[in-house]
Parts: sequence; C-alpha cells; structure tokens
Amino acid sequence: MHILEKLDAITAKNKSVLCVGLDTDAGKLPRHLAGKDNAVLEFNRGIIEATADVVQSYKLNLAFYEGLGPQAWDVVRRTIDAIPQDVVVIGDAKRGDIGNTSSMYAKALFEDFGFDATTVAPYMGRDSVQPFLRYGDKGVFLLALTSNKGSADFQYLDVGGETLYMRVVKTALEWNENGNLGFVVGATHPAELSGIRGIVGDIPLLIPGLGAQGGDVEASVRAGVNGAGMRAVYNSSRGIIYAGEDERFAERAREAAILLRDDINRYRHMQS
Amino acid sequence: MHILEKLDAITAKNKSVLCVGLDTDAGKLPRHLAGKDNAVLEFNRGIIEATADVVQSYKLNLAFYEGLGPQAWDVVRRTIDAIPQDVVVIGDAKRGDIGNTSSMYAKALFEDFGFDATTVAPYMGRDSVQPFLRYGDKGVFLLALTSNKGSADFQYLDVGGETLYMRVVKTALEWNENGNLGFVVGATHPAELSGIRGIVGDIPLLIPGLGAQGGDVEASVRAGVNGAGMRAVYNSSRGIIYAGEDERFAERAREAAILLRDDINRYRHMQS
Repeated sequence: MHILEKLDAITAKNKSVLCVGLDTDAGKLPRHLAGKDNAVLEFNRGIIEATADVVQSYKLNLAFYEGLGPQAWDVVRRTIDAIPQDVVVIGDAKRGDIGNTSSMYAKALFEDFGFDATTVAPYMGRDSVQPFLRYGDKGVFLLALTSNKGSADFQYLDVGGETLYMRVVKTALEWNENGNLGFVVGATHPAELSGIRGIVGDIPLLIPGLGAQGGDVEASVRAGVNGAGMRAVYNSSRGIIYAGEDERFAERAREAAILLRDDINRYRHMQS
Repeated sequence: MHILEKLDAITAKNKSVLCVGLDTDAGKLPRHLAGKDNAVLEFNRGIIEATADVVQSYKLNLAFYEGLGPQAWDVVRRTIDAIPQDVVVIGDAKRGDIGNTSSMYAKALFEDFGFDATTVAPYMGRDSVQPFLRYGDKGVFLLALTSNKGSADFQYLDVGGETLYMRVVKTALEWNENGNLGFVVGATHPAELSGIRGIVGDIPLLIPGLGAQGGDVEASVRAGVNGAGMRAVYNSSRGIIYAGEDERFAERAREAAILLRDDINRYRHMQS
C-alpha cells in the first residue's frame, strides 16, 4: 500500500494526526521496569497497547536505540511488530550519504526493519535522497526547517531571494516522481510552516516540536494541515510517553495522547 | 589522548595519511568467506591484519553494518577491537539531530563503540553538532563539500557572496572550543579543497572519493594537506578492500594500500 493511502486511512479511522514518538530513554523508565531484561521493549509495548487506537503514527528515533548495544536491532524490530498493521511507523534516522551508501540505509530501514517512512537529511543533494525515494510505496520526510534553535544557523540563509529551507523544499519537489516525498517542519515555526504548506499542496508534513520543545498546538495545526485537515503528522514524544512515572505509565500516556489528539483536532479544520 | 595527538602520531609512525574504508558489503565477499558465520568480521580482520602498518586510519561507514541485522553491533565492536590502539578509527555516520538526540548518537559512537572520530551533518546547526564536539578528545568531521554529484544541489548555493559550504566551514570554526573539529571535503573537488585548507589552517580534513569515485591523487593531496604534509585523511574503500577476490584478498589489499599510500606520499610535501 502506498504511504499516502495508508496515512489517509489511519488518519480517518483513528480521527487523529497525532504521532507518538517512541524515543524511549532506558534511563527514564518507570521504576518497576528499570533494570529488567527487555525493559525498553516492555515499555514500548505498554505505550503502544494503550494508544494505538488514538494515534495516526508512531515514530522511533533510532538514536535512542543505538545506545542499547547488541539488543538494539531486536528491540526496534519487536517494537515495530507490536504496532498494528494499519498504523504508520516512521523511522526517524535523518540519514543521507553518497548514493550506494544511502541505498544501504534505505534497505535497512525499509526492508529489514519495515518502517513505512523515514526522515532524510538534504545537505548531500539529490543522489543522496533518491535511494530512499526509489522505494515508491514508502514515505520520505526530508528535513526542511527543523524545530531546534540551530535551525537558524543555516536553514534561514538567503540564497538568491529565498531561504535555504525554501530552496530545499522547491528543489526536492522536482524529485518526487513516486509521490512519496514529505518534509519535516518544526511546530516551533508556525508562520514558516504555513508558507511551506502553501508551496507543497497536499504533500505530507512531519511536524515535531509540540510539547517539550514548545511548539504551539493551535498555531502549528492551523498552519500545517492541508485543506482537508489531513496529511500532517504531529509528533510528541516526552509529553506523552513520560506522562506517568509508575505502573500506570501506559494509562497516563493514553490520557495524554487523547488530550493532545483532541486538542489538535479542534484546529484541524481551521486552516490558516 | 586528544584526536590530533593520536592522528599526528600514527601519521608519523606509519608514514601515511591513508584511511582504508571498511565499507564491507556482505554481498561482495570472496567466495571462500561468503555464507560463513561472521564472514564480514573475518574479512575485516583479514584486511586490518594486512594493512594496519600501512594506514593512518580506518573508517567504518555504519550503513554497511546496519544491514547486517542483529549481528551488526557485535561486528562493529569486534572490528574496532581488531584495530591496533594507535591507529585512528572513524565512525562514518553523518548523524545530526536536535540536541538531546545528538547526545544519544554521540554516546553510542564515542562511548559504546569507542570510535576516535565521527562524521556529522551540518544542516541542523550548532546545537545538533555540539553534543559531538563536547567529547573534547574525539574528532568531529563536519560535512562541508561532499564527493558526490548531489553536492552541487545545495552546497554551492550562493549565500551572500560565498558558497554555502564555505559558510558552513566558517561558521563551524567558531564552535571549535576543544580543537577537535574537522571537515569532510571530497577529493573530487581539488580547487575547492585548496580554498578550504586556506581557511582552516591546521584543522584535519577527511577527504573521501579517491579511487572508485574518481578523485585525482596528485591534485587532491597537494590541495588537502597542511603545510607540514599532515592533518589530512585520504579515504579509499572499494579500491583497496576489493583489490583481490579470492583467498589472497588481504594480500592484494595490502599491495593496493601500499601503492596508494606511496602515491599519496609523493605529493604530501608539494602543497599547492
């Protein structure tokens, strides 16, 4: 199934554009799990079981798994296995390398792990991104304007009358032969998000930075969705997965997810 | 030991600025190894044993290991273990993410794997790079001008009278509080390499793209080394590790490494 079809179906079914970031830090687990074998996997399964009917997608930032050592591969694979088939799973990897090397990353992410989509860094240009886009059913979210402070260092540079991030967006749109391209735009930049939505039409946007990073829900939702209130992926990690600290962490995560989903939904059909 | 001290010592000891890229593709192993348990590790050990006194450094591109699945972590760790302590080991990962996430990558690369240096992508700016630079003894090679065709898409954009890659270099120089910053500049761009060397002084440059990618040895060596013929890391992968195809692959790799090291050395003291 093409990523857009899958994304639209789950958005409609769960009435949600909420993406829960499974950025599970082994050092921040509830006390009753800490130190147990497979604690991270058990935690992830708890969160997934409690939230799968409330979310559109899950996102695993691979940085949080690389640190697990030899178990990392297995924990990622089994976390993905725990996610219902119709929910979108994004591997947040921000890879990008010369062509034959990007192909290895794309294979690992899309074939071995089975992610539905991944994030890719733009700096190395077309031949570093194409190996990902070549998986025509899989989603590729290219970094455009990121949610962090450092986004100001290069992404806003003026390149002949427009910003670098806008040039990245416009250039990459020409690479979108399989209709599977998307962009990453931080919720912390609602005005710019609106400008990007204006350029990209119905292309999906992955929008991190709600919650701990300070992105405003109303502003970023009105700016980020398409005309139908769809094709946007609003990620929150810490605010949801660490909502509770004890045995009831999954229940608390569900409550936080429902609150945020409903808050987002309030503005989905009020596009700015 | 600080990365510069380690780099200078091995450069002098082995009379070499050659970096062998252990980008081992499980599908391209000599027939007698293919299909064996731990074939990649055995291959790497063979290459290392045959070349360790000829090289300055080894570089492992993590893309080639992620595809190994559950064994990946172990193969990387044990490959690093097989490398003599005084040879520099670079983890070519091209990571870069928001601060707390970059910290996780830095920990995995520098603490868990024990790489001496890594490559980092610049697009997300200072707070995405700093968690790597904070490991003051470890080397951080920031992508400046990459060896691939796609480097033309964004890296040459004019940003107020200079190229984006030059802006990245100049900006990042201000972040170099621990003296552990370096840059990646492709051997395929010798004129630009010379310009970057002129700006960065004695900062180390990681220079991939010799061999299969078409970089010229004389031009890129004269342009890339510092005034003392040092502080450069010339990477070749495929041309060395696949020099032979049978049981004598390691011997052939040694011959190819010696040839390339000596070819490079011919120009190290003829800085352009």
